[in-house]
Amino acid sequence: MPRIGKDEVLVSIKAVGICGSDVHYYTTGRIGDFVVEKPLILGHECSGEIVEVGKNVEGLQLGDRVALEPGIPCRKCQYCKSGRYNLCPNVRFMATPPVDGAFVEYVAHPADFVFKLPEKTSYEEATLFEPLAVGLYSVVRAKVSFGGEILILGAGPIGLATLQAVVNIGGGRVTVADIYDFRLKKARELGADKVINPQQSDALDKLRSSFDYVFETAGSVVTTQQTVKLAKRGRKVILVGLPAQEAIEFNTNQIITKELDVLGIFRYANMYPKAVRLAEKGQVNLKTLISKKFPFPQTEEALKYARDNKESSIKTLVIFD
Amino acid sequence: MPRIGKDEVLVSIKAVGICGSDVHYYTTGRIGDFVVEKPLILGHECSGEIVEVGKNVEGLQLGDRVALEPGIPCRKCQYCKSGRYNLCPNVRFMATPPVDGAFVEYVAHPADFVFKLPEKTSYEEATLFEPLAVGLYSVVRAKVSFGGEILILGAGPIGLATLQAVVNIGGGRVTVADIYDFRLKKARELGADKVINPQQSDALDKLRSSFDYVFETAGSVVTTQQTVKLAKRGRKVILVGLPAQEAIEFNTNQIITKELDVLGIFRYANMYPKAVRLAEKGQVNLKTLISKKFPFPQTEEALKYARDNKESSIKTLVIFD
Amino acid sequence: MPRIGKDEVLVSIKAVGICGSDVHYYTTGRIGDFVVEKPLILGHECSGEIVEVGKNVEGLQLGDRVALEPGIPCRKCQYCKSGRYNLCPNVRFMATPPVDGAFVEYVAHPADFVFKLPEKTSYEEATLFEPLAVGLYSVVRAKVSFGGEILILGAGPIGLATLQAVVNIGGGRVTVADIYDFRLKKARELGADKVINPQQSDALDKLRSSFDYVFETAGSVVTTQQTVKLAKRGRKVILVGLPAQEAIEFNTNQIITKELDVLGIFRYANMYPKAVRLAEKGQVNLKTLISKKFPFPQTEEALKYARDNKESSIKTLVIFD
Amino acid sequence: MPRIGKDEVLVSIKAVGICGSDVHYYTTGRIGDFVVEKPLILGHECSGEIVEVGKNVEGLQLGDRVALEPGIPCRKCQYCKSGRYNLCPNVRFMATPPVDGAFVEYVAHPADFVFKLPEKTSYEEATLFEPLAVGLYSVVRAKVSFGGEILILGAGPIGLATLQAVVNIGGGRVTVADIYDFRLKKARELGADKVINPQQSDALDKLRSSFDYVFETAGSVVTTQQTVKLAKRGRKVILVGLPAQEAIEFNTNQIITKELDVLGIFRYANMYPKAVRLAEKGQVNLKTLISKKFPFPQTEEALKYARDNKESSIKTLVIFD
Repeated sequence: MPRIGKDEVLVSIKAVGICGSDVHYYTTGRIGDFVVEKPLILGHECSGEIVEVGKNVEGLQLGDRVALEPGIPCRKCQYCKSGRYNLCPNVRFMATPPVDGAFVEYVAHPADFVFKLPEKTSYEEATLFEPLAVGLYSVVRAKVSFGGEILILGAGPIGLATLQAVVNIGGGRVTVADIYDFRLKKARELGADKVINPQQSDALDKLRSSFDYVFETAGSVVTTQQTVKLAKRGRKVILVGLPAQEAIEFNTNQIITKELDVLGIFRYANMYPKAVRLAEKGQVNLKTLISKKFPFPQTEEALKYARDNKESSIKTLVIFD
Repeated sequence: MPRIGKDEVLVSIKAVGICGSDVHYYTTGRIGDFVVEKPLILGHECSGEIVEVGKNVEGLQLGDRVALEPGIPCRKCQYCKSGRYNLCPNVRFMATPPVDGAFVEYVAHPADFVFKLPEKTSYEEATLFEPLAVGLYSVVRAKVSFGGEILILGAGPIGLATLQAVVNIGGGRVTVADIYDFRLKKARELGADKVINPQQSDALDKLRSSFDYVFETAGSVVTTQQTVKLAKRGRKVILVGLPAQEAIEFNTNQIITKELDVLGIFRYANMYPKAVRLAEKGQVNLKTLISKKFPFPQTEEALKYARDNKESSIKTLVIFD
Repeated sequence: MPRIGKDEVLVSIKAVGICGSDVHYYTTGRIGDFVVEKPLILGHECSGEIVEVGKNVEGLQLGDRVALEPGIPCRKCQYCKSGRYNLCPNVRFMATPPVDGAFVEYVAHPADFVFKLPEKTSYEEATLFEPLAVGLYSVVRAKVSFGGEILILGAGPIGLATLQAVVNIGGGRVTVADIYDFRLKKARELGADKVINPQQSDALDKLRSSFDYVFETAGSVVTTQQTVKLAKRGRKVILVGLPAQEAIEFNTNQIITKELDVLGIFRYANMYPKAVRLAEKGQVNLKTLISKKFPFPQTEEALKYARDNKESSIKTLVIFD
Repeated sequence: MPRIGKDEVLVSIKAVGICGSDVHYYTTGRIGDFVVEKPLILGHECSGEIVEVGKNVEGLQLGDRVALEPGIPCRKCQYCKSGRYNLCPNVRFMATPPVDGAFVEYVAHPADFVFKLPEKTSYEEATLFEPLAVGLYSVVRAKVSFGGEILILGAGPIGLATLQAVVNIGGGRVTVADIYDFRLKKARELGADKVINPQQSDALDKLRSSFDYVFETAGSVVTTQQTVKLAKRGRKVILVGLPAQEAIEFNTNQIITKELDVLGIFRYANMYPKAVRLAEKGQVNLKTLISKKFPFPQTEEALKYARDNKESSIKTLVIFD
């Protein structure tokens, strides 16, 4: 049982979503420079119930149902002090080595990274605040305004979260592309105006220079290459998904001759309050992203399921009693 | 019958909304420095059918149903060239002396300030694109993002247009204040989370420093004074409505100690395409703002009606056969 | 002798500048809602030598000559986490009741609010980083770019700091107005292109709507009223100085019809590194702002001198052996 | 002798700079999709004297010494109306096929794209306003503020113009890299804090993730590839130079994991007034960029000289009597 500091709360974990990064660490033991060198507890998309409250904590109390923002920054570096704490080089991010994650019964967490759930949001749904935060952050960083042709490449959890963020701004016409039809069906259900399966149609090829905002969430080399070709002159490409391969053939000339903004996205900052508010107002559907649930003792099965069922599953959860 | 230039179209006017400024010119013959010195045709919120097309015009054709953006800038000054054509000192704005307006059968208009209506948008509804453009511009200039406590002071045509703009961004909690209950009812219908009638309740007084965005659209001295007190530290006040009296008692210290942004709004730029898109997607309800219609020969009655029925009417239209 | 935490350093104070707020507390015992209710040590513009280093501190060592940024925010609220820590409601700001200030021999201070001085910057000059931070923040917040007509109302320490910030951006034409000629002489020396003494000339009255940026640093009612009249259409007013009187007659209509941005300034955030860099590159002259020095035991005389000699003095310092 | 419209002036050309694009068209007959299909007059960096003034023109008169901004946009498209006229698809840009350029005695030009020279700026220096506009635009688009580590890759005309723009903002520490030492010497002379010749040193390789702003002006594949590696986390890469080869090996993962902004630059908009102001204030040295001059009848020799002397020449001019 972890001991809490005076600015922390103790949370009894109730549900944890499995992220692609969890699967990756489980399978390969590393992501880029992050290497698992000793046993590591995975899981960072989590929610739970407060069972102890630090003495300086205000606004939270025993029994509160909460979501945990998983990255705790140093609060002192230039990034933290200028509002971009997601770039803090000393961040302690759950389930990124050597920091343990949420597949565990109790977590001590700083109160200001703990967010009360709206009444109608379940623990299960609340695990989705994490990918939703990525989607919201992408849309905020892209400064999407009313109107515009929007393309989302990839309709996995991040792509569908980005879709849910973007349909919350009126006037846009949103196209979603993915190679799995069941994901495109979800995209339709969640408000996409048009869906494209590039394995079944060349519709995307015909849309060069057609989009005001191109969000890349698939993390494939091909879709990353397409981004700059699909964007309209003077508009924006937002890179969220990380291809396995570092250097790719990329048409940088398009960035110049079309004067694009190509914006990287690394996690998020200050998005949980926005995610909570959207859920509270019923403006996102998180439940529909949950494909499969496993009880806590079957966490390894859950990881394997998530690894093996990309073609039929969006988000796999681990549920605690 | 006006003659069109090669970059213009001729529009047979079908509907014109009456704006507060029309009523003002009709009643007093002036607004600030703008004085009616010779007969002036009023009306600038207008829609119609294209009956002639200039030879250089692309993308518009005979019979197209269109809305007219009423201000034509010089296209050459520093404001025009930097995208803020609403501030062009040489703009020719319909129904602002000495430029004639739209209470007339035919208008020649530059094609790039003419916008095709979505199929389901009627001529009548399309007159509302003009106040909607003001609302959209206010919200764009305020950079409203997901979430936030939003206050709209005044629920006339501009206030309700601002409301419609703002509810098209998810996550906000919107409060609307007005002294007429029928307007507050409209606000509720259009998505306000909370309404306040300051003549019946002191709820507003208790909300000092509570709002992330305070939009002032009522144009009264009292509401303008309230803005800086109601805004949260570090947030924004957007002044749209113009009080009759130039200098007012204003708590400028609040701007400094709360580090506010106080932003003026003068008309709009580049908003008609956004208005069209929102209408096309069914994300605004323009019809509900129309209270009363008069046929073209009764334009003067329409002006009088608009002048005399503020407590029961939102927008009065003049309709052409 | 204060004890330091592991993230703190102990600083032997070497020089402290006297700010208008120090004089105000000394004279009246309050500023707005801040009231001195028990003995309070004044002074917050300070520099010194590090005499002890907390065990977690990196990048600072014994003997380092440093400037102290005087406001320590909570690091946890929405303002801190979004980069606007100057608006933190729980900030502990030196010499703002009930937090003690720098007229004392030793101060324990968090290392990330302590900045090493460039070699050529003296302790005395380094006290001026504080007002320079205000000037830099005003210019950064106003997004001053190459070119533009710039007006600075008031040529006290903040006005001259703003001037020094603004002349570090090429292409601007800077006018400074003040009622004391010796200050205008300093302004000239520091790069003002034009100076105006409104008690001797009506030059300012003739410059309505002439400036792209109007910085108000005098904190007088009259100059605050002038700001919106002097700004060009579509441009910016930056309010820094706090008039004694809360509500003033203010022409809010100018904000609307000229579509101005009126921006409040409350202290600063993230500016000390910029101040240090400018000093290091020799791009500011801080020495010239120092008018008079007193030894530490004569701190009260220093306060009285600062209070009584506004017409001939810019900045009064207290120097420690 | 061209005839002028009522909004135009006739300019007797006095000096024209040779741009890399002129050399490219001269040598290969094309740049990307732009192909010279019939005789084309080259030259677009030009200055001259006004010899005729259209009847609507204000602010310009016979005998005025002026620079010509070479791209005339349509003024009607979404880009023109939103202030990004450099992206106008219908722009008529001098010496870009099929639009003739400035190696000609008289040019008719819209008055609002004609700028009076400061008294002390010669016709020859004024030709450099064009590359200076590119440099200024890059710096404005990058939102460079006080301070920061700045890297400019390439010290040709654009690189040195970018350098001159960037040193006009205080507090930056500027490193310039180029393979020609004489260019690096110019960079030093113009204010670079540090210069690197990557053919003589591996200093650049050691500076991974060290720069707040990386400007790529060399247009080589290698330097373009380096940009994202050299940029600090959360900072900006600005791509100005166009490599001959479209698709290159590019580490897009760095954009994501460091959350970079990669910004393309295509020409410029609204920069000539800023260039004029900097020249007027003596804050740029344009003369030093001029390496060689040829009289008008030897324009072809000038083109050949510019083509063949990159290792010893910055800018070649053609001078008219």
